[in-house]
Amino acid sequence: MRPVAAGETRLGWIGLGMMGAPMCGHLLRAGFAVSVHTRTPERAEAALAAGARWCDSPRSVAEQSDVVFAMLGFPAEVREVALGEGGALAGLAAGGAWVDMTTSEPALAEEIAGAAAARGVHALDAPVSGGDVGAREARLSILVGGDGEAFEALRPVFEVLGRTVVHQGGSGAGQRAKLANQILIASTMIGVCEALVFAARAGLDCERLLASVSGGAAGSWSLANLAPRMLAGDFAPGFYVEHFVKDLRIALDEAGRARLELPGLALAERLYAALAEAGGARDGTQALVRAVAEASGLAWPPT
Amino acid sequence: MRPVAAGETRLGWIGLGMMGAPMCGHLLRAGFAVSVHTRTPERAEAALAAGARWCDSPRSVAEQSDVVFAMLGFPAEVREVALGEGGALAGLAAGGAWVDMTTSEPALAEEIAGAAAARGVHALDAPVSGGDVGAREARLSILVGGDGEAFEALRPVFEVLGRTVVHQGGSGAGQRAKLANQILIASTMIGVCEALVFAARAGLDCERLLASVSGGAAGSWSLANLAPRMLAGDFAPGFYVEHFVKDLRIALDEAGRARLELPGLALAERLYAALAEAGGARDGTQALVRAVAEASGLAWPPT
Repeated sequence: MRPVAAGETRLGWIGLGMMGAPMCGHLLRAGFAVSVHTRTPERAEAALAAGARWCDSPRSVAEQSDVVFAMLGFPAEVREVALGEGGALAGLAAGGAWVDMTTSEPALAEEIAGAAAARGVHALDAPVSGGDVGAREARLSILVGGDGEAFEALRPVFEVLGRTVVHQGGSGAGQRAKLANQILIASTMIGVCEALVFAARAGLDCERLLASVSGGAAGSWSLANLAPRMLAGDFAPGFYVEHFVKDLRIALDEAGRARLELPGLALAERLYAALAEAGGARDGTQALVRAVAEASGLAWPPT
Repeated sequence: MRPVAAGETRLGWIGLGMMGAPMCGHLLRAGFAVSVHTRTPERAEAALAAGARWCDSPRSVAEQSDVVFAMLGFPAEVREVALGEGGALAGLAAGGAWVDMTTSEPALAEEIAGAAAARGVHALDAPVSGGDVGAREARLSILVGGDGEAFEALRPVFEVLGRTVVHQGGSGAGQRAKLANQILIASTMIGVCEALVFAARAGLDCERLLASVSGGAAGSWSLANLAPRMLAGDFAPGFYVEHFVKDLRIALDEAGRARLELPGLALAERLYAALAEAGGARDGTQALVRAVAEASGLAWPPT
């Protein structure tokens, strides 16, 4: 596969949500020709204003593109967009490439890679870490699974979108690496929420506590970036609870298939699923602190 | 209380273990006169060679000192060293100060502060975060509870030992802040262990995974500092499992008293207590990864 280059390679982008929109914007600014499709057409306005071409289906995006990227919400959407009747694989010519940047199921990534190979199409799974801020600032970490040659050919695009781009192994390895990332975040978030609730109930000055512990052995990205929002009662989404629940369920399924007992992951899935069911699905993941507080009868934020 | 100063204030130091020995060494190098006592006299050799004076009991340390510091293992030792017959409070003159840097029970800190006040002695609880490395490099975070005037008078000593020195509130607040710190570490460690076990079982290259995720939203001190040791199978103690179990039990007791339900903390206490009972009490806290792996029938370190 030839290395992609702006002015030569025709790109397609499917999914212009909180992550996909800024990512697609970076590609347009880098000079790539991009055809786009997204479920809610109004979401494409900024991309179209920046020079993208609208297509009415994933398949029609693919028919105009050498490489099609997807950034969607759930595995069912990935399946439909990749493999469905109006899906991208049906529109890609042999020698083209499919790149799914959604956090999705490793087994689905393998299935899509098999279907792509049967058509002479390359397929990579390339989920990202870094959230909406990382997407806007092009500072994502991109975890890539699939054929190493296709990875190298597509590296110039990944480097427009992210700062840390690492090939993790064959098909599905990007998804599995991302799940490991989510397992890390899951338990870390529980620790942050429980520590703040403990400190608030103990009558400590939580700001002062953060000043003491954030730089030490208890430090984490979640503590530095989300604890201040938790203390302020700011639950605006950087990363939706419902998407995190999806990721944790995929991770639990994978763990179960591998006969792994991961009680911290299981606990996080229970707590986040309960939060989603209680109306927090479209809050940011930091809203867990309110659920932890309320489970003990404590109002949040503390006054 | 007058500010402490090298050449004027006589210090006492009780407890010369993995934390206490390097901390006492910093005070000696800073020019303070220090009287010392520790349960195992051979542990005092380096301090004596650096100019410390040996005393046969905590009380006799206190009789030679204006301010007595303790850095011990368990609350029972703190109680004996502070309040016992040969204890420090019995030896301190009115106007002196007792400073416990052990991670211990908030209620015990309050009890000692009450007994100290009855003798005209100041008392601070001042547990630390940063582990053996922080102690050796004088980069500890020191979390102080007790009278604010005594805190300010003793600040010059704290600043010899640590980099982040914060007054958290009245007696016991230092201990409660430290427990919040341990609650953070507890769940973060579970996440690190489970993510590595998941990744190893999935056949991922764990070093490559760490390169991808350590700088992002999954990042933490534990991931950066302990995951590499976990992958190497290096379980040498920076912080003993048995001391962490003690801390987690104190935190659980405090949470229970405050009617807080903290399931992540409870899970960590169960996992670490099982590790201690299975022979890991004197391993470093990173040994939890082996227990998590073995619970799923996976040998650790992965080959």
